[in-house]
Amino acid sequence: MIKKQRLFTPGPTPLHPRVQEALSRPVLHHRTDEFRAIFSSCIAGLKSFLKTDGDVLLLACSGSGVMEAALVNTLSPGDAMLALVAGSFGERWAALGRAHGMDVRTLEASPGEAVDPASVERVLDQDPRIRAVFVQFSESSTGVVHDVEALAGITRARPGTLLVVDAISGAGAMRLETQAWGLDVVVVGSQKALALPPGLSFLSVSARAWERIESTTSPRFYFDLRRERKAQASGEAAFTPAISHVVALRSALDSLEEQGGVDALVANAGLLASMTRAAATALGLPLLAPRDHGDALTALLPPPGLEAGVIVKALKSGFGSTVAGGQGTLKGRIFRVAHLGYYDATDILGLLATLEISLRRLGHRFELGAGLSAAEAECLKRTEARA
Amino acid sequence: MIKKQRLFTPGPTPLHPRVQEALSRPVLHHRTDEFRAIFSSCIAGLKSFLKTDGDVLLLACSGSGVMEAALVNTLSPGDAMLALVAGSFGERWAALGRAHGMDVRTLEASPGEAVDPASVERVLDQDPRIRAVFVQFSESSTGVVHDVEALAGITRARPGTLLVVDAISGAGAMRLETQAWGLDVVVVGSQKALALPPGLSFLSVSARAWERIESTTSPRFYFDLRRERKAQASGEAAFTPAISHVVALRSALDSLEEQGGVDALVANAGLLASMTRAAATALGLPLLAPRDHGDALTALLPPPGLEAGVIVKALKSGFGSTVAGGQGTLKGRIFRVAHLGYYDATDILGLLATLEISLRRLGHRFELGAGLSAAEAECLKRTEARA
Repeated sequence: MIKKQRLFTPGPTPLHPRVQEALSRPVLHHRTDEFRAIFSSCIAGLKSFLKTDGDVLLLACSGSGVMEAALVNTLSPGDAMLALVAGSFGERWAALGRAHGMDVRTLEASPGEAVDPASVERVLDQDPRIRAVFVQFSESSTGVVHDVEALAGITRARPGTLLVVDAISGAGAMRLETQAWGLDVVVVGSQKALALPPGLSFLSVSARAWERIESTTSPRFYFDLRRERKAQASGEAAFTPAISHVVALRSALDSLEEQGGVDALVANAGLLASMTRAAATALGLPLLAPRDHGDALTALLPPPGLEAGVIVKALKSGFGSTVAGGQGTLKGRIFRVAHLGYYDATDILGLLATLEISLRRLGHRFELGAGLSAAEAECLKRTEARA
Repeated sequence: MIKKQRLFTPGPTPLHPRVQEALSRPVLHHRTDEFRAIFSSCIAGLKSFLKTDGDVLLLACSGSGVMEAALVNTLSPGDAMLALVAGSFGERWAALGRAHGMDVRTLEASPGEAVDPASVERVLDQDPRIRAVFVQFSESSTGVVHDVEALAGITRARPGTLLVVDAISGAGAMRLETQAWGLDVVVVGSQKALALPPGLSFLSVSARAWERIESTTSPRFYFDLRRERKAQASGEAAFTPAISHVVALRSALDSLEEQGGVDALVANAGLLASMTRAAATALGLPLLAPRDHGDALTALLPPPGLEAGVIVKALKSGFGSTVAGGQGTLKGRIFRVAHLGYYDATDILGLLATLEISLRRLGHRFELGAGLSAAEAECLKRTEARA
């Protein structure tokens, strides 16, 4: 039986064919007009992707690298910071802060829930020394979305407090208005909605964030955004850029533009997420985040009596499909299906059907086809509503 | 909404990723030891694919070319031949014969049916001048399979009559025993079960067929198998071979061997075909060939009141998937879904789910999910039986 190896993980996501093609081209030299033109047009495309006229910078690193860049540029050692922790990636903000000697406060949500903006406002009121709030737009470990628009409403009113958003798995999966909402720093990785491999990251920086960055004293060299800003203004990077990734990013952005831009990509993830949630409900698989779920991915609990890891293994061994298990305290308790990036309805319907077969093999009782029927009905409803 | 462009046509079929990778390599020179080794190992792999120790030759042409090669080498102008016509490709045998001045007899089956070996035996008994019988193993225009094992039982007993089998869409999709059954010539194309692009063909030639080929007088140059036999014995081709295709074929054969060889590929197509038939029945889509269907593809009639072409268009415009329409007299009356080649259960389940959504959009009444439920049950049944 042929089993195509398919990724349904919230990063890495499947490469777009045009990205694959671009990555296989001979490498360019980066100190040339040809590459500078590609680099600059990527920056322009990313501004449109993030909906901002402000600065966007590219870095050759993965997501944790660009998170660190955001933190060391916006804070000086000893600064008070607030990390909103709704899962493993929220914990990473706190860990980064501690590694760089910050005075780290956290606000934690239960697994499957988001941190409430009202509680953030209370903490900031109590402690005006907090110089930045760090948050995940989409918390990849649980699929929860944070209301970054509301959070920005709170931080905008406080001249001394920046809002730094990890939109690594959220950008391109849900509506994100960097400039209109007033997000100070937004960090994104290549291996998510843009359907590139890991290794390239980018971040937007507001005018207010630049003011801060000019004065912070955290030691930094590779991640010094002041240096990058100067270099990238003329289509260069301060250090050797991830050349083939940048060339592939241009292809990804071209495809994105042809397919209707970031809004269309967001609508696509929304459709697949709602189809998945409908199927899960019909199959008796509880959502980890029934209220605070986003559309980048869906985290599901196994039916009673089954372990999540067994479902993950059955999909892989039975059909070649990789879904993600749980992380940290959720290890073994959930499995996660991605919607962000280069997936279409046929992909998700195929996965859901093989999930049904796998669940039946594992002894779960339900009406065969019930999940598919619900997912198909959801697809019909949402595409009719749009037509 | 993202719509990945997917082929569900019985040729071309989707390229295997390793084939894609191999095709993108720099081209080799063909008069080198390096290429000769690849060429010879491809021939060995194809013998195993066709289950024969006899000669197999590679030609740089598409399916109709290798059909012509088979015909002009086994017949002389004016020879009597019998073409079994169960669809468009059976008609092609007759057309090739007429183009080369043969005395063409035909035995025609109704659309959706195969030609009965008993009727072939009667014709050969009545007319012992018939020097060769030409048949499709899988008739791609209807999905019908011919019982070539029974046909070979008839021709083997007649020293003056060869059996020439077009297994272009049948090889790798259904059990085919070239040597054990005594098939004289079997022709195959690259763009089917082997998951290459079109442009490379191959054929097996029995000892009995070689005897004939040495004496026939049909004019031929590019398709002269005597010349190719000599050249290919040492890993060369008489003319410039389709070099990159040969290199990619080596990769395809490597993958095939790792996945359990041709028997596993045949079992895979059989699984997908039975899942498709189960879904079609549940959805009220009649099979064109309820009795004589093969497993290379499934030809389906639309439900009453719908045109087949509308379903083909809805799958393409709604989801990016291409299924094949009807050919010749079946144009507009059927649509065809392929199973041969690089498809897996997730592919076919995804397609069937989008077929359900498309049928519902077009007003066909059925219980949503009924086809998927039937396909999933079939998958469970067949994989349990195997386990």
